[in-house]
Amino acid sequence: MAEGFHSNIHLALVHYPVYNKAGEIVVSSVTTLDVHDSSRISRTYGIGALYIVTPLKTQQELVDRIIGHWKTGYGATYNPTRKEALHKTQVINSLQDAIKDITEHSGKKPRIIVTHAKRLPRNIGYDDMKEEFKKDEQYLLVFGTGWGLEKNIINNAEFALSPIEGPEKYNHLPVRAAIAIILDRLLGIRS
Amino acid sequence: MAEGFHSNIHLALVHYPVYNKAGEIVVSSVTTLDVHDSSRISRTYGIGALYIVTPLKTQQELVDRIIGHWKTGYGATYNPTRKEALHKTQVINSLQDAIKDITEHSGKKPRIIVTHAKRLPRNIGYDDMKEEFKKDEQYLLVFGTGWGLEKNIINNAEFALSPIEGPEKYNHLPVRAAIAIILDRLLGIRS
Repeated sequence: MAEGFHSNIHLALVHYPVYNKAGEIVVSSVTTLDVHDSSRISRTYGIGALYIVTPLKTQQELVDRIIGHWKTGYGATYNPTRKEALHKTQVINSLQDAIKDITEHSGKKPRIIVTHAKRLPRNIGYDDMKEEFKKDEQYLLVFGTGWGLEKNIINNAEFALSPIEGPEKYNHLPVRAAIAIILDRLLGIRS
Repeated sequence: MAEGFHSNIHLALVHYPVYNKAGEIVVSSVTTLDVHDSSRISRTYGIGALYIVTPLKTQQELVDRIIGHWKTGYGATYNPTRKEALHKTQVINSLQDAIKDITEHSGKKPRIIVTHAKRLPRNIGYDDMKEEFKKDEQYLLVFGTGWGLEKNIINNAEFALSPIEGPEKYNHLPVRAAIAIILDRLLGIRS
């Protein structure tokens, strides 16, 4: 398979460390659907690697089973578009390991871009981020599950994207929807 | 609750008539997740009504149970953001009934906008559609589940939106992702 158009831009879907409803730091559960949706969306926009981040062995095995079923099992013949979508999906222990993996493969440490539902003073807009993408660098877009990414991940990231806002004050988009909208804003083609 | 910012723009998630993988016209199954995701996304962008379209009584009851649980049951206190999201969600027999419902409530027959994964000669782009939305009219955005909307729905619609395209040829986005991206393109606010 040819390299993606944006093979220097990678995505991490983080299940730890994230907050739960009570504001505690937890490991959230991987859902089959998030793995499929984020894979299809990443494939549509030509993303490099998609890392499903969880430290739990049982959850890692679940993701491996999903990928295996659609890439080499019965699913590969039943629905080849899923095989294609999952081609660049992999499960990994931690965000640090994802950074290491990108660095090893590309020779460059990726710049970290976090996404967040609330406005921050240091937010970068979508047009500015698109400008940044013109550089010959590696990038890792980080999305949190549950009630959002642990604050040190936000604070230590090089960029924090502006939140997605509609005309209403309601901002409780599923992470699947946030990934779709953000990749479209950054990498979508409009004729 | 105040009227939505785009209370003249409505959305229909159609489960019949749609195609299956073999190209046959079928009733697709309602999924709990599609109901929640499309409700949250619609709420974010201030959509008027969200119609979950299915002619099957058992499926209609499923949707009513989901809505009931989060609007008045235990879920309403557990997670009020879901209650808010589902405020304008309703199940309906057919696309014709959705059109009738909008006409009765607003006094105007809605203009039908279909979405489709393939390019059509008559496609309208997103900027042109945004211009159209400035008129004092009612609109119904129609999304198909399964392998897409039956062809007469496409042919009879007043507008057919350009498909979502990334840099790659792969176009197998989940309907949830298509709804998110299209509402963001048409109604999103970018600072």
